[in-house]
Amino acid sequence: MRVGLLGLGTVNTAVARRLREEAALLEGRSGKRLSLAGAAVFDLGKPRDVDLSAGIGITDDAHALATSDSVDIVVEATPGTDPARHLIAAALDAGKHVVTANKAVMATYGGELSALALAHGVELRHGASVGAAVPILELLDNALAGDRISSIEAICNGTTNFVLEQMQAHGATFQSAIEEAKRLGFAEADPSMDVDGWDAVFKLVILAAHAWGAGVEPGEVHRRGIRDIAVDDLQRADEIGGTVKLLARAVCDGGKVELSVEPAFLKLGEHPLADVGGSENGFLINSDLAGTTLLRGAGAGGDPTASAIVNDVVALARLRAAS
Amino acid sequence: MRVGLLGLGTVNTAVARRLREEAALLEGRSGKRLSLAGAAVFDLGKPRDVDLSAGIGITDDAHALATSDSVDIVVEATPGTDPARHLIAAALDAGKHVVTANKAVMATYGGELSALALAHGVELRHGASVGAAVPILELLDNALAGDRISSIEAICNGTTNFVLEQMQAHGATFQSAIEEAKRLGFAEADPSMDVDGWDAVFKLVILAAHAWGAGVEPGEVHRRGIRDIAVDDLQRADEIGGTVKLLARAVCDGGKVELSVEPAFLKLGEHPLADVGGSENGFLINSDLAGTTLLRGAGAGGDPTASAIVNDVVALARLRAAS
Repeated sequence: MRVGLLGLGTVNTAVARRLREEAALLEGRSGKRLSLAGAAVFDLGKPRDVDLSAGIGITDDAHALATSDSVDIVVEATPGTDPARHLIAAALDAGKHVVTANKAVMATYGGELSALALAHGVELRHGASVGAAVPILELLDNALAGDRISSIEAICNGTTNFVLEQMQAHGATFQSAIEEAKRLGFAEADPSMDVDGWDAVFKLVILAAHAWGAGVEPGEVHRRGIRDIAVDDLQRADEIGGTVKLLARAVCDGGKVELSVEPAFLKLGEHPLADVGGSENGFLINSDLAGTTLLRGAGAGGDPTASAIVNDVVALARLRAAS
Repeated sequence: MRVGLLGLGTVNTAVARRLREEAALLEGRSGKRLSLAGAAVFDLGKPRDVDLSAGIGITDDAHALATSDSVDIVVEATPGTDPARHLIAAALDAGKHVVTANKAVMATYGGELSALALAHGVELRHGASVGAAVPILELLDNALAGDRISSIEAICNGTTNFVLEQMQAHGATFQSAIEEAKRLGFAEADPSMDVDGWDAVFKLVILAAHAWGAGVEPGEVHRRGIRDIAVDDLQRADEIGGTVKLLARAVCDGGKVELSVEPAFLKLGEHPLADVGGSENGFLINSDLAGTTLLRGAGAGGDPTASAIVNDVVALARLRAAS
């Protein structure tokens, strides 16, 4: 099966490297040979650190690649909703399977894109859109299938982890911590998606769709970011053996699903997510038979995100091999 | 699809209750109606706390139920390898899908039984055999498919957790702790399978089969139980902020898989499994793209084990619904 990459940043560069360097491993696991059909980028002039030159083209016509006859699976890893959602729709319309890491697209247009995939008899997989390498969506889809899930708690935003940790450990103000995060590449030039809680909201909406089939709009989620957290708050938390985290929480009570993203005090040694820090993500699931299940792992970065994407590509190849 | 239960102890009683009480939920999730065809027990005279009377028979002829024309899926939850392995083989021979919680059978005869299932075009699922409700096999099967797993560490035996905790917290000797565990029902009358490490060995062998396709015999695993742990050892561990746990460890180095089960000192706050206690199980997986992934949850008990079994039953029904 031939894979076309939309975007060639850190994530898809890692995907390309894995497809190239572990072709035999992936063929053994999937029952299909996976090859790289090409990559679409916004800026053809930018230097790339993966060798795609051997017969594989880089184009700046993403739409052409997404709908090309020489592509079976489109891997989308570009920032933001546009043009990503149009490219995904075009690929599905053209009968391609799509694997995306795009949480903004899945949280906002996931319902209609999934319907489009179903209509065309293709798959839209997005394991990388929540928790990067942490297989939380796989768990919600294919474990606990006989359980009633009552709640999910998640620490799923590395930027706010970093900022709150800087404030707590070094007494940094929010403003200086966010500048440090930008300097180190942990925060965007405009950090509002992270610090105002939107990134966590997107992930929480996707989790709720997988856990309960809930179709919640991101704008409907109760949301409070970390801008008004003061150094004093974190010092008080520290004194009583705890931390403050941006906590995403979904509760299903009698069929009603309520979602919230807000800063929460978590006591170390008591709350299983209290020590989830840096780019780690953690998910705590409560269900009626299984009780409490905890899943933690690498929630960001090129290789961890590529791990989830390649897993989805292998899953698609296995489906094809089995049919 | 009609489910036949082999054994009707705590686990299959919980399975029967879920199939009965959540029939609509399970049909919605699987696309198939799941019904209870009957249960086979060793002792027909023993009182049962699930009402199976409405048209569903309890028999003491397990072989007849396992091969009955009125059964599509056989759920096996009996202790030990015999007669379990013969019943599983008979069910597979008769073209039934089998779901088992039996780690001793899967660790010892998993290879030949899986080959038998393949030959008959049926499935042999055993999510409950390791970690009960913790979906570690699901994770190894369907996540990390593009990763090279380098190691797995597991705390997966509740009896030794309990005994070591009693010794550390209350200065109990091994002998008095094991008597207390028996009194509370946390240990068998003959606790040697747990305290000598065999239970953990079985689980580790199954993990290695899923992670690397490794066919290791239980007898080949380096194994040391907890009988020679002294109260002094645990007090010393306590003084330096740690615990002693029976740690199962699998390492894959250059294609060579090495398995060991032995007591290990784990420092609290440093090793992510150090505070896995009681009947909780914890699994730490290292792989090349994803890095470190941690999964923890309920590793024993009727409801948690039923959670994994029902998940496997739903998975089989989904396969049937899709075909």
